[in-house]
Amino acid sequence: MLTISSRGQNMTESPIRKLSKYADQAKKEGKNVIHLNIGQPDIQPPAEVLAEMRQLNLSEIAYGPSDGLKPLKKSIQKYYKKNAIELKEKDILVTSGASEAILFVMNAVTDFGDEIITFEPFYANYIGFAIFEGVQIKTIKANIEENFSLPNLSLIEEQISPKTKAILLCNPNNPTGYVYSKKELELLKDIALKHDLYLIVDEVYREFFYDDENSTKGNSVLNFPELKDHAIMLDSISKRYSMCGARIGCIVSRNEKIMQTIMKYAQARLCPPTIAQVLANKAYTISDDYLENVVKIYKERRDFLIDRLSKMEDVMSSHPMGAFYTMVQLPVEDTDHFAQWMLEKFEWNNETLMVAPGSGFYNNPEDGKREIRIAYVLNKKELEKALIILEKALIEYPHTIKEKNKILAQ
Amino acid sequence: MLTISSRGQNMTESPIRKLSKYADQAKKEGKNVIHLNIGQPDIQPPAEVLAEMRQLNLSEIAYGPSDGLKPLKKSIQKYYKKNAIELKEKDILVTSGASEAILFVMNAVTDFGDEIITFEPFYANYIGFAIFEGVQIKTIKANIEENFSLPNLSLIEEQISPKTKAILLCNPNNPTGYVYSKKELELLKDIALKHDLYLIVDEVYREFFYDDENSTKGNSVLNFPELKDHAIMLDSISKRYSMCGARIGCIVSRNEKIMQTIMKYAQARLCPPTIAQVLANKAYTISDDYLENVVKIYKERRDFLIDRLSKMEDVMSSHPMGAFYTMVQLPVEDTDHFAQWMLEKFEWNNETLMVAPGSGFYNNPEDGKREIRIAYVLNKKELEKALIILEKALIEYPHTIKEKNKILAQ
Repeated sequence: MLTISSRGQNMTESPIRKLSKYADQAKKEGKNVIHLNIGQPDIQPPAEVLAEMRQLNLSEIAYGPSDGLKPLKKSIQKYYKKNAIELKEKDILVTSGASEAILFVMNAVTDFGDEIITFEPFYANYIGFAIFEGVQIKTIKANIEENFSLPNLSLIEEQISPKTKAILLCNPNNPTGYVYSKKELELLKDIALKHDLYLIVDEVYREFFYDDENSTKGNSVLNFPELKDHAIMLDSISKRYSMCGARIGCIVSRNEKIMQTIMKYAQARLCPPTIAQVLANKAYTISDDYLENVVKIYKERRDFLIDRLSKMEDVMSSHPMGAFYTMVQLPVEDTDHFAQWMLEKFEWNNETLMVAPGSGFYNNPEDGKREIRIAYVLNKKELEKALIILEKALIEYPHTIKEKNKILAQ
Repeated sequence: MLTISSRGQNMTESPIRKLSKYADQAKKEGKNVIHLNIGQPDIQPPAEVLAEMRQLNLSEIAYGPSDGLKPLKKSIQKYYKKNAIELKEKDILVTSGASEAILFVMNAVTDFGDEIITFEPFYANYIGFAIFEGVQIKTIKANIEENFSLPNLSLIEEQISPKTKAILLCNPNNPTGYVYSKKELELLKDIALKHDLYLIVDEVYREFFYDDENSTKGNSVLNFPELKDHAIMLDSISKRYSMCGARIGCIVSRNEKIMQTIMKYAQARLCPPTIAQVLANKAYTISDDYLENVVKIYKERRDFLIDRLSKMEDVMSSHPMGAFYTMVQLPVEDTDHFAQWMLEKFEWNNETLMVAPGSGFYNNPEDGKREIRIAYVLNKKELEKALIILEKALIEYPHTIKEKNKILAQ
């Protein structure tokens, strides 16, 4: 019989996708759906990049080198140098987005059945790639009450087995917005050295931090000389320059064997997209003003959002210090149901919301049943409207915990 | 101890790469190196695509749908319809080149340790992807004396085990240029049905056939209704429209479960490159003239090349009917050594050649020791010069079989 592989069957479906059909239906019915569910920035790419696009005049669209176009690699090298990270060119390999970077890195450090440790809630696609590669993801839960900071070391060490090859961290964090402190990174460094584990850090939001005391500057995993062989960093221009569709990311490590191994993977897939690399190179060479302005915008939104959420009854948000997400605990028992209900049954002035239910960010979906992830990739006016809608929806939703308690009390 | 995964260690290095340093050195020394080693077409992309590129005026570079931009999918659907292949939109998923297509398809049909059957010589990166995914590639040798046609059915059936999930074919073939006949495809169809195996056909060279009797029109794996669930086709615009650097390919299958599984992989990596998809869409909508002209050019080169090779002493080429490669048997014992020698020690009017040694196209490198692959992606004048250089090199090379026999006879 023709069969689908177990890994294919086990592959998780995008948690958003299950909701998409309800969003589509709502739109068909004429409702405006405000999307708080996806990390697609509304901010434009740098004007210089758009200008470069308008004057692209290549006579060919040829294969480039498997590790990326040389000018782009040089620009990336300069970018990190400006961020106090000295690298050789061979420490950098350009990938088709951070997605390909994760795929390659996992394959280079694990064999079938090996384990990688990460923290919950997590970027859902880590699990997808792990299933694709036959890797077990072991998780340690971070808690909203502690702002999703690094869990206790003893809990981490408990999870380490002879099959554990790496700790995977997202800093600043998607979905929590938490920015790990220098001290937390040092604790992870100690564990990595003690147990000889790779420390893989997804730093695609590295420019997005909103409080000076939580600076990610100087807090890259690449800033720890002792981790020369242990540190692997994943990066991407998708969020930084609002160029999600370019699919340009990179893997950075000073571990020569890792980079040589990944180069073999890179050769098998030939090269990253050429035109996008030309535009990425432009993005890397613009002045700092663009990013400073972008960060300012996100900070204002963050401040507004968190303030507004803190005033909602029975709603608890963590305090995100970076990226552009926050995890919010709602006074409902099942945010999957609530999210679907908002799309199917609710409207306010003919508008409604799409949010990402928390269940998709946890190994055990139950752990996220009361949470949602909000991405603040909308302008303040839209965000304000979205929060009014959320508030109204929570009042009208018949299955809030309050309503349930009322019924139980009757 | 920090370790590299076994799969990473076992990953094959690009067979070309080992030679690249000698080519670089030759260039440093001022020699012109003519590249017959790589399938990078010298032909320009369609003028309409280059024009579209010059007038790209997007205001964002956003994520697209995971299965590809809708207009592109519609254009692809139309393209196949014109080629007598009726498809639904959901039968098509856009990928980052055929490379990603192979990666996804292998993962969907095999689990760790499963087997896929293919024919030797093969596209070297099939092996790379198989190692990446923990898949065993079992091979059956095709022979230059039989023009690399389909090996005997009994040899194929001998290789089938309970772990075999698919037969993988490249048609028209890279590296041999062989075009499988309708009859051969029917034989494979029967095997696929009898043993319930997927028949995965890499048709990236589907437009490139040079003799009407070897038409690939109507000879797609998708033209066999009985194979509705068994047939999976891989395609790409890289060669067809000389857009290798765009990294746009697709997976096509009417097997719903396969496509649903692959959609989950596609979602994990978010989307294929957006700008390249816009250009790919343009390429799919141009008139047939472009491809007719391109095929005419390659046919002329093929005719010239094969005629010229047939006149060289002790040189045997197969008769390629499609793609733009041919495997050539040389009167030397080790083409790896010969290829390196041409770059390091040989020149003719300060020029030399880079060829792809045959060893990289066989499971057992020894099987390809006397062969090289030539890609005819140079204009006729360059090709002519290249063949003169090859001829001169074979005369001067001190380790030809003839020279060896002379020494033995002394």
